[in-house]
Amino acid sequence: MHAYVSDPLEGATLTERIDFRTDPSRYKHWRVEYDGPVATVFMDVDEQGSLFDGYELKLNSYDLGVDIELADVVQRMRFEHPEVRAVVLRSGKERVFCAGANIRMLGGAAHSHKVNFCKFTNETRNTFEAAGRESDQTWISAIRGACAGGGYELALATDYIMLTDDGASSVALPEVPLLAVLPGTGGLTRVTDKRKVRRDLADVFCSMEEGVRGKKAKEWRLVDEVVQNSKFEETVMERAREFAARSKRPTDVKGIALTPLERKIEDDGSVAYSHLTVSIDRDAGIGTLVIKGPEVDAPSNIEELHKQGAEAWILKLARELDDAILHLRLNEMEIGVLAFKSEGDLDKVQAHENVILSNRDDWFAGEILHYWKRVLKRLDLTSRSLVALVEHGSCFAGLLAEILFAVDRSYMMEDEFEGDDRPTATVVLTDGNFGPFPMSNDLTRLETRFLGEPQKVEEAKAKAGVSLEAADANELGLVTFAFDEVDWEDEVRIFLEERASFSPDAMTGMEANLRFAGPETMETRIFGRLTAWQNWIFQRPNAVGESGALQRYGTGVRGDYAKERV
Amino acid sequence: MHAYVSDPLEGATLTERIDFRTDPSRYKHWRVEYDGPVATVFMDVDEQGSLFDGYELKLNSYDLGVDIELADVVQRMRFEHPEVRAVVLRSGKERVFCAGANIRMLGGAAHSHKVNFCKFTNETRNTFEAAGRESDQTWISAIRGACAGGGYELALATDYIMLTDDGASSVALPEVPLLAVLPGTGGLTRVTDKRKVRRDLADVFCSMEEGVRGKKAKEWRLVDEVVQNSKFEETVMERAREFAARSKRPTDVKGIALTPLERKIEDDGSVAYSHLTVSIDRDAGIGTLVIKGPEVDAPSNIEELHKQGAEAWILKLARELDDAILHLRLNEMEIGVLAFKSEGDLDKVQAHENVILSNRDDWFAGEILHYWKRVLKRLDLTSRSLVALVEHGSCFAGLLAEILFAVDRSYMMEDEFEGDDRPTATVVLTDGNFGPFPMSNDLTRLETRFLGEPQKVEEAKAKAGVSLEAADANELGLVTFAFDEVDWEDEVRIFLEERASFSPDAMTGMEANLRFAGPETMETRIFGRLTAWQNWIFQRPNAVGESGALQRYGTGVRGDYAKERV
Repeated sequence: MHAYVSDPLEGATLTERIDFRTDPSRYKHWRVEYDGPVATVFMDVDEQGSLFDGYELKLNSYDLGVDIELADVVQRMRFEHPEVRAVVLRSGKERVFCAGANIRMLGGAAHSHKVNFCKFTNETRNTFEAAGRESDQTWISAIRGACAGGGYELALATDYIMLTDDGASSVALPEVPLLAVLPGTGGLTRVTDKRKVRRDLADVFCSMEEGVRGKKAKEWRLVDEVVQNSKFEETVMERAREFAARSKRPTDVKGIALTPLERKIEDDGSVAYSHLTVSIDRDAGIGTLVIKGPEVDAPSNIEELHKQGAEAWILKLARELDDAILHLRLNEMEIGVLAFKSEGDLDKVQAHENVILSNRDDWFAGEILHYWKRVLKRLDLTSRSLVALVEHGSCFAGLLAEILFAVDRSYMMEDEFEGDDRPTATVVLTDGNFGPFPMSNDLTRLETRFLGEPQKVEEAKAKAGVSLEAADANELGLVTFAFDEVDWEDEVRIFLEERASFSPDAMTGMEANLRFAGPETMETRIFGRLTAWQNWIFQRPNAVGESGALQRYGTGVRGDYAKERV
Repeated sequence: MHAYVSDPLEGATLTERIDFRTDPSRYKHWRVEYDGPVATVFMDVDEQGSLFDGYELKLNSYDLGVDIELADVVQRMRFEHPEVRAVVLRSGKERVFCAGANIRMLGGAAHSHKVNFCKFTNETRNTFEAAGRESDQTWISAIRGACAGGGYELALATDYIMLTDDGASSVALPEVPLLAVLPGTGGLTRVTDKRKVRRDLADVFCSMEEGVRGKKAKEWRLVDEVVQNSKFEETVMERAREFAARSKRPTDVKGIALTPLERKIEDDGSVAYSHLTVSIDRDAGIGTLVIKGPEVDAPSNIEELHKQGAEAWILKLARELDDAILHLRLNEMEIGVLAFKSEGDLDKVQAHENVILSNRDDWFAGEILHYWKRVLKRLDLTSRSLVALVEHGSCFAGLLAEILFAVDRSYMMEDEFEGDDRPTATVVLTDGNFGPFPMSNDLTRLETRFLGEPQKVEEAKAKAGVSLEAADANELGLVTFAFDEVDWEDEVRIFLEERASFSPDAMTGMEANLRFAGPETMETRIFGRLTAWQNWIFQRPNAVGESGALQRYGTGVRGDYAKERV
């Protein structure tokens, strides 16, 4: 516990780092009971266990710390418990399912923390749906007690919502009337797009503090099933077994333990993982991430991959990259540019990737692949200027080459550089670039890149497996710029300086629009439309000002609103 | 000219009304040359002709006044000049096409004015594309000179962009580097989704102050054609004639004059049109719009409709409703709730509507129909709580019934009310509710409403032409609530009071999310994702604060930015 943020409009510096690494032995807020194909996840928030000082986590409300544990629960379920086919999400408290995000925390948090907290919780909610879609682990909400705001948004992210009909239990989105903010963790979007609630009923629902109970909740499509209270427990387990029976998840498999992730953070902010280093140039506002390709040969077969488990290069790197992104997002907010480099053996990267691509039907290989998909999506959604520097000696092949298409722009070294005897900068495309790692818009990064010239995707595909030096990569449209030694240093420096001189807010808005061309999905709508409006409201005096609703919450005095419509 | 806004974060009151009505005799900034099937629209902004004091409209920059005239140009082209098949948009100045929105105006404008100004300009840009799609009037931009920011956004909204290759003329979106805001009038969205510019090139383009000239502009997909300077004029006219030749717009037709729109505004803010009245309850924050159904019989055939011209009830009402919405949006910002009522003869409404529905191939009937589509979209996009009150004696049939599906919720009178001898409240659906008036998401309002229960659209369709009293309308899901005389007054009053008590900002965000379920289109993305991020930035100190870029523009001192990323 440590000092927390101060002025919501000004922001403040955290005095301690937020650590996204956890494991069940350290959970304060969750417990999981495993019973063969059915797991039950209990939300039982420790009131005193908040991540920061200044508020208590009453009524199963959550802060970032609670969500970090939940993300770990979902992640471990995928890797450590492949036998799980249905997951029941429920409360460990008597009278409340979950009251949503902690309001005092929100009221006190800096704007940047609020926004990044919401982004992480959104990403975590998405993992429920991903678990069903990708791994046939169906999440079920079993709601007894009040399920309000972020609590109902938790339920909305599960595949099936069950509500007991005890005359008291309800679902509600009271943010608008109570707090003058939106149900911004996917709530509004899932109401309209996932549950397809009629819009006028959605309007009524989102204007009610008290929420909706019983049969009406089902009629309004807010829940999937309302169950007589006396039969609730047995019906929930019945449904869980039904979903489990329908799952194609393999049986007789042994999970892979996600062993502790080691990292070392230096005083200057640099971070060393085993396959990734992050160095920080605080004056320039630049973080440089160097990915190290595998040094050892790829596992010779799927059995060996299983044997390596969490030590396998491809899984370990994914975990390290994921952790680094989250660390930079929440703890290094003034680092506005992230530059990606790599170093290593292109053939080895392809060989390691090939083990998971050619064994996709194996549950573990599949999980690693899906995890990389999530990590790359996390990168897409990272609100920093992203650049890739394809230097000599780099190893951007296959899934590492996806980083070139995730970043805002890329620079590649062309021809020999005097005194640089590393292998010539080369990019290699693989099957990994043409399907398995779609973006939130459900297109591959290359499809999104070449929306206007779809034949370019085919041209690139025809070159899969070919070593592409700068001229070829540039010709194929795979990199933004290729520079030889005469221009390289200046061009890269000028870009980085220029970027650092721009307004970080304009960058955020520009990236949120340029990165997601093409179709919208529920996911892109949550991170685009809904989040943007919520962020806007999080800046408005009616919400965060001194007499705004978030500040006044709990004082018994309602927010005092300027009446002007925008 | 009159006193203007003051503090961009606080807002201020306009001392004079903005009038959206204009006609060519009053234009200060535009002129149009008609030459058979080709019209040329010259943007030639009068520096001294700004809508407010405090800034000059240099370099063909625009403010709301310039855009009001442009909207009128496009509208009149559709009705008064059906012979026009291709429209060339060009500058009346020597060295500049258009420098975009006036920065001093933006820097000084209240947040609410900025947002509503951008919305109107976005709607006006959309009418270019609508003219091509609906009426085969193709818009061509002929760019000579600098075409920057909102200037390039103007061009982006046309169907075909031509750039002269004179070594100086360029297209640019310099908002981010220069002003710390976004190209928010559709710019970013049209770059990614209409022109499908590769995302890294888009990133480079949107980071450049100087823009892109010549062949590179074509290579990057920023323009459709780059023309040798000496051949520019003749090539532009050649293209215009080509597009005109391909148009299916009828020949030998006579336009319909859009005669001046009469209205009377009282001291209390109420507005009287011929078929519409608006009354204002300033204390309650409610505007009530009462639509009057036609008193006269419908035109007996299409010839009679032509003869009636702008006097036809169905066109006149559309114009009045359009004007009323714009007036309320910009001049009555504290009126947070708009309540729609109607009174009149249901049969007559259907008969009048039927003239345009059954004569859609007639250009004039078609234009009226398309205009109603735009007016209803304008209503969808109006950032006020919208409610319909279906009282006895009302005439919500066909296109007027669309209003019931555009509003956030609707209340309908059920059974007899003592002392009320008007005909029982009845709703009638027509073909008009099942296709001709799609929303921005390209679905009909009923399809959007019943996204979760598509069979309900069919059920409603089966009842087309049937008089539906409250019980039936409620059963079909066409209204939110039906109340009899015991409950009506209380329920409506409670709703209106409750709505007035909510934060207007939360309402804005909620409506922006709940109203547009289902697919996203370029249009919905512009008003959702792009606008929301722009509005957020328009609240950030890095843009609008004392040392923000918008405030410092023109002082020679760059914006001083807080470096924290959000």
